[in-house]
Amino acid sequence: MIKIKAAVLGCNGLVGRQFARLLDEHPYFELSCLTASARSVGKRFGETIANGRSLPLSEKTASLVVRETTAAAVMQSGARVVFSALPASVAGELELELRQKGLFIFTNASSHRMDPLVPLLIPEVNAAHLALAEEQLREFRGFIITNSNCSVAGLAMVLKPLTVFTLQAVTVTTFQAISGAGQRGVAAWDILGNVIPYIADEEEKVRRETKKILGTLAGKQIRDHELEIYPSCSRVPVKNGHLQSISVEFPKPVSADGIAAALSGFTAEPQQLALPTAPHQPKLVQKNADRPQPPLDVDAGEPASARGMAVTVGRLRSQGNRCSFFLLVHNTVRGAAGGCVLNAELALKKKLFKGE
Amino acid sequence: MIKIKAAVLGCNGLVGRQFARLLDEHPYFELSCLTASARSVGKRFGETIANGRSLPLSEKTASLVVRETTAAAVMQSGARVVFSALPASVAGELELELRQKGLFIFTNASSHRMDPLVPLLIPEVNAAHLALAEEQLREFRGFIITNSNCSVAGLAMVLKPLTVFTLQAVTVTTFQAISGAGQRGVAAWDILGNVIPYIADEEEKVRRETKKILGTLAGKQIRDHELEIYPSCSRVPVKNGHLQSISVEFPKPVSADGIAAALSGFTAEPQQLALPTAPHQPKLVQKNADRPQPPLDVDAGEPASARGMAVTVGRLRSQGNRCSFFLLVHNTVRGAAGGCVLNAELALKKKLFKGE
Amino acid sequence: MIKIKAAVLGCNGLVGRQFARLLDEHPYFELSCLTASARSVGKRFGETIANGRSLPLSEKTASLVVRETTAAAVMQSGARVVFSALPASVAGELELELRQKGLFIFTNASSHRMDPLVPLLIPEVNAAHLALAEEQLREFRGFIITNSNCSVAGLAMVLKPLTVFTLQAVTVTTFQAISGAGQRGVAAWDILGNVIPYIADEEEKVRRETKKILGTLAGKQIRDHELEIYPSCSRVPVKNGHLQSISVEFPKPVSADGIAAALSGFTAEPQQLALPTAPHQPKLVQKNADRPQPPLDVDAGEPASARGMAVTVGRLRSQGNRCSFFLLVHNTVRGAAGGCVLNAELALKKKLFKGE
Amino acid sequence: MIKIKAAVLGCNGLVGRQFARLLDEHPYFELSCLTASARSVGKRFGETIANGRSLPLSEKTASLVVRETTAAAVMQSGARVVFSALPASVAGELELELRQKGLFIFTNASSHRMDPLVPLLIPEVNAAHLALAEEQLREFRGFIITNSNCSVAGLAMVLKPLTVFTLQAVTVTTFQAISGAGQRGVAAWDILGNVIPYIADEEEKVRRETKKILGTLAGKQIRDHELEIYPSCSRVPVKNGHLQSISVEFPKPVSADGIAAALSGFTAEPQQLALPTAPHQPKLVQKNADRPQPPLDVDAGEPASARGMAVTVGRLRSQGNRCSFFLLVHNTVRGAAGGCVLNAELALKKKLFKGE
Repeated sequence: MIKIKAAVLGCNGLVGRQFARLLDEHPYFELSCLTASARSVGKRFGETIANGRSLPLSEKTASLVVRETTAAAVMQSGARVVFSALPASVAGELELELRQKGLFIFTNASSHRMDPLVPLLIPEVNAAHLALAEEQLREFRGFIITNSNCSVAGLAMVLKPLTVFTLQAVTVTTFQAISGAGQRGVAAWDILGNVIPYIADEEEKVRRETKKILGTLAGKQIRDHELEIYPSCSRVPVKNGHLQSISVEFPKPVSADGIAAALSGFTAEPQQLALPTAPHQPKLVQKNADRPQPPLDVDAGEPASARGMAVTVGRLRSQGNRCSFFLLVHNTVRGAAGGCVLNAELALKKKLFKGE
Repeated sequence: MIKIKAAVLGCNGLVGRQFARLLDEHPYFELSCLTASARSVGKRFGETIANGRSLPLSEKTASLVVRETTAAAVMQSGARVVFSALPASVAGELELELRQKGLFIFTNASSHRMDPLVPLLIPEVNAAHLALAEEQLREFRGFIITNSNCSVAGLAMVLKPLTVFTLQAVTVTTFQAISGAGQRGVAAWDILGNVIPYIADEEEKVRRETKKILGTLAGKQIRDHELEIYPSCSRVPVKNGHLQSISVEFPKPVSADGIAAALSGFTAEPQQLALPTAPHQPKLVQKNADRPQPPLDVDAGEPASARGMAVTVGRLRSQGNRCSFFLLVHNTVRGAAGGCVLNAELALKKKLFKGE
Repeated sequence: MIKIKAAVLGCNGLVGRQFARLLDEHPYFELSCLTASARSVGKRFGETIANGRSLPLSEKTASLVVRETTAAAVMQSGARVVFSALPASVAGELELELRQKGLFIFTNASSHRMDPLVPLLIPEVNAAHLALAEEQLREFRGFIITNSNCSVAGLAMVLKPLTVFTLQAVTVTTFQAISGAGQRGVAAWDILGNVIPYIADEEEKVRRETKKILGTLAGKQIRDHELEIYPSCSRVPVKNGHLQSISVEFPKPVSADGIAAALSGFTAEPQQLALPTAPHQPKLVQKNADRPQPPLDVDAGEPASARGMAVTVGRLRSQGNRCSFFLLVHNTVRGAAGGCVLNAELALKKKLFKGE
Repeated sequence: MIKIKAAVLGCNGLVGRQFARLLDEHPYFELSCLTASARSVGKRFGETIANGRSLPLSEKTASLVVRETTAAAVMQSGARVVFSALPASVAGELELELRQKGLFIFTNASSHRMDPLVPLLIPEVNAAHLALAEEQLREFRGFIITNSNCSVAGLAMVLKPLTVFTLQAVTVTTFQAISGAGQRGVAAWDILGNVIPYIADEEEKVRRETKKILGTLAGKQIRDHELEIYPSCSRVPVKNGHLQSISVEFPKPVSADGIAAALSGFTAEPQQLALPTAPHQPKLVQKNADRPQPPLDVDAGEPASARGMAVTVGRLRSQGNRCSFFLLVHNTVRGAAGGCVLNAELALKKKLFKGE
């Protein structure tokens, strides 16, 4: 199989580096273009800030010369697939331009998540929404497929198997890692020995994205899921891994064992297709009383190519019509770069695009 | 007014030191006895470990010689009032023995909190429960009055004014400070850069203590409040201050402004009696979008003698029949030593005991 | 005594807020002008970011309207004394302009520290260097007096009394707090659970500033002290307080007791003049084996108006011709705003300037 | 080659777990005995606390049943080689008893480090000291070989290649990770946002162990190296990796480049023998200005079996007769378990013992 040339936009940030790590020696994609801001342009990727941080990269990837983040640079590189780690302020326009030029964009930016024709995709949850991308292909020559907000990535993954019990309401409090705000997004002065009970716009994203992802495709439209979501988001002094305290309300009592079985037994198309970045078991249920803990569980996921792609659930408790538990998701892997790469793997296997 | 002699049991721990700080130059009580484990016995308090940690104490308190934690030592000191910062494993028996000897015990230990005749007292919430202490006085010569669990101290304080809207259910996720486990209770290895989503027995305490405190006195018994409580407790790398993400369910919609008004306008007997440790305004409502934050808000409370005795609420949001917010309570002050001192001030002013 | 009107340039940063705190209700100075960047201009100081962070300020200071950082704004306010918390990139030019206009500038910026006619002043160390400011007055109508680098502030203070033993060499490793880099200067991602063994240009500053401060005035020039200084600077995840591991080499053995006596007994002109911000005892020697520790000792200094102005020395050990110890200095108080205010107090008392 | 049966004493602590990780599927040794305190005895290793912490272990090692820490238990297991992670209070006696029974003990405990016949061994530094173990074999049937203190492990490794320039004095300030004190050795309350400038007995260990390790074998005795060592030790809120600020004094100037070349080019017997746990390059010299940093560099060492066995040097600066730099050593790998395993590999290859 000939690999398809791929670009990573915004390669120097925390998410950009995860893209580079995941695409380095990827079986489907060949990393052929890395872009960043002016400061890094013209340097070998191995000499940029990102490389100072000990990424284990192949010589080939390390020697890629960083280009400027423009449509022209991407086109010139011959890339057909684009992974975007750009901030939303930049991503919105550029991604539209690249779609117009017939590229296939898998983006971590929030700009187009609520666009009616853009799938907000988590392969284990709503693979059917890929049909929207086909609509885009009809209208443009390319498409944009987004991943979800990093907290939502974990939340939607555990809610999906629980839909069999009928979801009425979800109360969720997040403990979000500093990497979620980017390398310089949280000042040490603000967070050391502290919890900040606020992340701008995050609660609204949790609400609307979860409802869209769990929604059903009706013709060319997504009809949002009807469950009520009560989110409260906070930042904690943890490096990687968004922990979430979740309480789900059902119409009638469901046992903790029933929930555990539904979660740990769940697999979906990515597992059936054995996608390279898909974890064998996407939801792990921890029995130890004090887990999941971010530093211990954040990298969950087998095989090695799927590290950080499984979410971990623990402390399952049932009380009346409620079931409560803690959930951990790797925010820059499953909740960002890894989620996009898995989206691309699925889209490729489902023949939404090919190399040329 | 002649001050009443008081003892602090377990003076060297984090809560014991707060007791010493609060009772040093207290207008009602005279600190005349400090007890600790064998290692410190015979030393001046000013030379113990506690003093190495920069407590600003009067010369008189600093020069008290630490006694062993026994009933005999307390009786010998002439103390009539006992403040207990003992671990539950030790407190249970000793507190009963001291009550039998006619002492008035205000304890932070959990041992007797659910005893039917023991008031689980928060002066702004359930001063009426003091009637139980009168029952004890009839049966014994002394009494035991307990404060609540440190998380409950904040939770019950904010739920009380909301009972006017009728409470149906409360979902609460705690972010508890390491001081809540005592000075050596949490190992740095375990918590640095981490969140631990488990505190042994804590969720059960939150549930049952809150229901008792909000309960109503029916004859000589407390009838628990009927609201449902769904607690999830975690430990975070914060030194002082238990933050809580709270979502309250009412029978019908209540506006965030309505909640804010009910909270910030609330005062009760401690304020009317101008008790020394009572904050002028027990619940502060923060308008800044990213508050309360533990290091910035934990010491809330005016006047200076009530620092750490007010709780702070922020991010009030209304959604359907729910209202959600964050709450911060100083766990070793309002949730421990300060709570007990305020209990003693109230009991004294209500003439449940006197100096001799 | 009529107070002299004073301005603080750059009032919203960590150092600027310390200036505001120290000058609020100062006996010599009246805070009449606060400047900041465009974002805050026109707002009451009490409504800016700085105020969101719980500064206890008088109503008068809180209601000052923030002006833009320009010479015109300062002149218009009628301020005669200027305290500068500006970054070096901005401070250089503006301070020269203000001096030209006859103002008396006490700055924390590094821009003019090595200017031959500018005293790099620590009142307890080199009050004689004030003579340089008189030279400036002859040439311009105003003057610039700088404080030292925040690490040097502590180092020079302890080296001064040790000059009686003759200083040959000093090896110093710093553990610098994040506040030293400003509120957003250190990203949480970079420092959490880490030590960064590098601070740009810091070692060179330690070397040259210490040699100038300890130098002797020869005519209109400072002749640098001859001791060798071997600095290694690092950043640690501590909020306030630069800890330093110092090893001093003498020509012959000096006992630890001799050092302790020389340090703890030392006072100088600020103490003799009872300057408001001068600590009664500028160098405290800690006997506890594990001190100084930043959170416990950073605010050392009596009376209350001198909190954070004393430095603390501990773990004094003598070995051959060397004496080693740890030192702690509050970097944004003694090492920044407090140092400048003390400089102004000294200059005023020495009649280098007056109100009008 | 038949593997030699090996025991790990104290398998549940941080060092014990590193032993288990390193010996799991080791080419020379077969892990056949794990001991711990009573609490864990009788459980499968995979069910003890240690296992809760995500050690990636073979099924064989995970299923070993933990024995009590006694000589009898070790003898019964058939182990010939013993790796000890016991605390010094327990290790002293038991190790003597096991030596008497003819076992070969490689210990991390400090109890016997200064015994005249016990080599304080770092294979890259003083392999010649193994001759002392032969003396022990003559006197007893077994021997004890100790590793050094965790800070010394790094310090001696970098000083060794610098002996060619003649070492006169070394000033060293350590920034030691919390893992150095064991999992519960440092309380979060004490270290969060803090630096503690004291570790009991550590400075004396740095002085005397370094001088012994760099010493020369004269007959059956080690003659200590004559250099002066001025150590100052501190604890920082870092999980793994002891950073050290080191300043070396030579008789005459040595360039930073000369030092870098001497360090990075250095190899010794472990490299020549290709011992499994020996890093190809034991000292890495980092060019990036802000390195080494514990979280980024602590696991240095190639191949994979030698991760954490290389030390990293950075910020090399020359000034007069001094050369200063920062050093990082993984304290529980190179400075503890890994050091002992490498010692055993060397002793085996040098035929000091064999399987039977």
